[in-house]
Amino acid sequence: MDPLSDAIKKSGAEAYVMYASSHDADMRYLTKFTTSDPFVYFKKPGENGTIIISQMEVGRASRESPAAVMTRAEAGFPEILKKEKDPSRATAKMIAGQAGKKILVPPQFPLGLARALGKYCTVSVDSGTVLSMRAKKTRAEITAMRRVQKVTETALGLGVALIKKSVAKKGVLYRKGMPLTAEQVKFVMHSHLLACGCTAVDTIVSCGEDTAIPHMTGTGPLHADEPIIIDLFPVEEKSGYYADMTRTVVKGEATDEIREMYETLREAKRLAIALVKPKVPGSEVYQAVVDFFAERGYESNTRGFVHTLGHGVGLQIHELPTVGPAGKALAAGNVITVEPGLYYPGTGGVRLEDIGVVTARGFDKFTIFPEELVL
Amino acid sequence: MDPLSDAIKKSGAEAYVMYASSHDADMRYLTKFTTSDPFVYFKKPGENGTIIISQMEVGRASRESPAAVMTRAEAGFPEILKKEKDPSRATAKMIAGQAGKKILVPPQFPLGLARALGKYCTVSVDSGTVLSMRAKKTRAEITAMRRVQKVTETALGLGVALIKKSVAKKGVLYRKGMPLTAEQVKFVMHSHLLACGCTAVDTIVSCGEDTAIPHMTGTGPLHADEPIIIDLFPVEEKSGYYADMTRTVVKGEATDEIREMYETLREAKRLAIALVKPKVPGSEVYQAVVDFFAERGYESNTRGFVHTLGHGVGLQIHELPTVGPAGKALAAGNVITVEPGLYYPGTGGVRLEDIGVVTARGFDKFTIFPEELVL
Repeated sequence: MDPLSDAIKKSGAEAYVMYASSHDADMRYLTKFTTSDPFVYFKKPGENGTIIISQMEVGRASRESPAAVMTRAEAGFPEILKKEKDPSRATAKMIAGQAGKKILVPPQFPLGLARALGKYCTVSVDSGTVLSMRAKKTRAEITAMRRVQKVTETALGLGVALIKKSVAKKGVLYRKGMPLTAEQVKFVMHSHLLACGCTAVDTIVSCGEDTAIPHMTGTGPLHADEPIIIDLFPVEEKSGYYADMTRTVVKGEATDEIREMYETLREAKRLAIALVKPKVPGSEVYQAVVDFFAERGYESNTRGFVHTLGHGVGLQIHELPTVGPAGKALAAGNVITVEPGLYYPGTGGVRLEDIGVVTARGFDKFTIFPEELVL
Repeated sequence: MDPLSDAIKKSGAEAYVMYASSHDADMRYLTKFTTSDPFVYFKKPGENGTIIISQMEVGRASRESPAAVMTRAEAGFPEILKKEKDPSRATAKMIAGQAGKKILVPPQFPLGLARALGKYCTVSVDSGTVLSMRAKKTRAEITAMRRVQKVTETALGLGVALIKKSVAKKGVLYRKGMPLTAEQVKFVMHSHLLACGCTAVDTIVSCGEDTAIPHMTGTGPLHADEPIIIDLFPVEEKSGYYADMTRTVVKGEATDEIREMYETLREAKRLAIALVKPKVPGSEVYQAVVDFFAERGYESNTRGFVHTLGHGVGLQIHELPTVGPAGKALAAGNVITVEPGLYYPGTGGVRLEDIGVVTARGFDKFTIFPEELVL
């Protein structure tokens, strides 16, 4: 029996219930149906579950989802709405009618609807069974993520090529007589992604002082002799899966500090990857990098290595497992990033990020992109 | 005082609390800060509110948000986590420490965190104050949405031009010797959007039988003499605002049924737009279209006019107000779509969708795109 059916039984509930759009990754994972409007999904132990949706979406839902599909009319919603004017309370009554007297819901279940449900049934909160299920990828999921990563590397390659072909004038990078901007580099990468059915938002192409702030997305002309961080994490529209990678480059001359930070970073990444295998806690891999940085004189505090070492990737860009101070045991099938970074205001920042899957033997890296600092 | 401060006071709470990423439109609306990871926001009456975020995001949050910014360390999270190992319970304790003994939260607040908060404070559920605030757009929001709509129309124009320039061979549309596909039309539109800082997902370019299913996104070669529905609803990455439009075209000859449905649709749209003004209920505008269709022999049930007449648009593609059976009084500042559609399996579907803002005088339409059925 699947882990979710076990969780339902263990909680003594009759069914597991969700109310969300497919922007909720758990919902997309369980139903494989995509819509930006919230809908009801309920599952009884051993079943594939049932989607309750408007008549208009029945055809599409039936094609896309392995779940059974029921219209709101079939679930009695119109009659309920006649007596119970409030749509939230009517939805609650409809859910209770289908799912039973005792239901289990995910932690992100909306509180308003949970309170309305309280009138008709007992609501227990699951501790994150679906989140844990999602952390172990199937072969099909791994295939999809490899595909997205491949597209991501080609896109990032186009961005790096643009920087490589640029020429420096008074410290500013130029291409075809115009300053080369972060926006142009993003556009070139995003165009390729688009042609491959992927989209990226919040892409980072930061330069110079901005690189010292890890999530600064970057804007305007790029400069010579300064670190440029490119962090690209697209999602494939069709499958919903993400990839994630980061490279740091310098066009011209890198300062000694940046060079040293970068070399230390490469070693840290290698060291971390060598440690990754099932049963090793993410916290241990993270701590090994912190210790290694400390040996080399780099702190891991409000400066230096300021973020975690990595995170799970899947239908969300950040999901389980965490490779940070709170990281629990890794397991085969986890798709994670390994992304050490060093950030010093006044000097700049460097980050390298690879992605891959934890296997019985260790870490099967998807990323094959070169690690060339100076272009 | 702002409506949210009023709601806090009225509920007897000390503060309003949210826990979400900026994918939650309410969160983005209140904080103007964008991140894909959930964070805490709390607001006491009369204040701009406070974001609690990791040290790493402080710089960016301070630049982007009018809210005050506090690190998790400043909010005592690390100390709390030492005693209270469970992160959800630790977050709850941290929130209670900052926000007070009685808090107000939105209906979509996560149930798991709400239960954890129950140990430290009383949690009341707001009825949707922020949702209502979002329904009335400011001048700045309207400017942003007009801008996105303009870009959308240019993009859709490129898609239509591609269809117009194609040639029919044995019923299939060809362009440069290759069948013209829904994917190509989407790509041309999406490329333009990308160059303008916008992205679209779930774009519809459906043809023939598929047009009878309103949300069928469409795939493969396009056909001559059959309706092609193009529904495009991009979001501008920088502002987060959406636009929305639909046109139906036929390359070649339209059947009499499709022609008649289309002409009826145009009349229905005009009729509906003429009715839009403050205080008129959305349900009344919807019903007028249903009645008009009935007069012309088109039903509004599981066939014919199967969806609502329109919806609010803003930081979400579907938001308040609804222009359907449950539609309440419209108000100046509402940005809504007017989108009648008719769908008959075996015959096909047609839809036209305009967007605009409700003003004191009526409806200020953003959409200026022509309504040419036969290309």
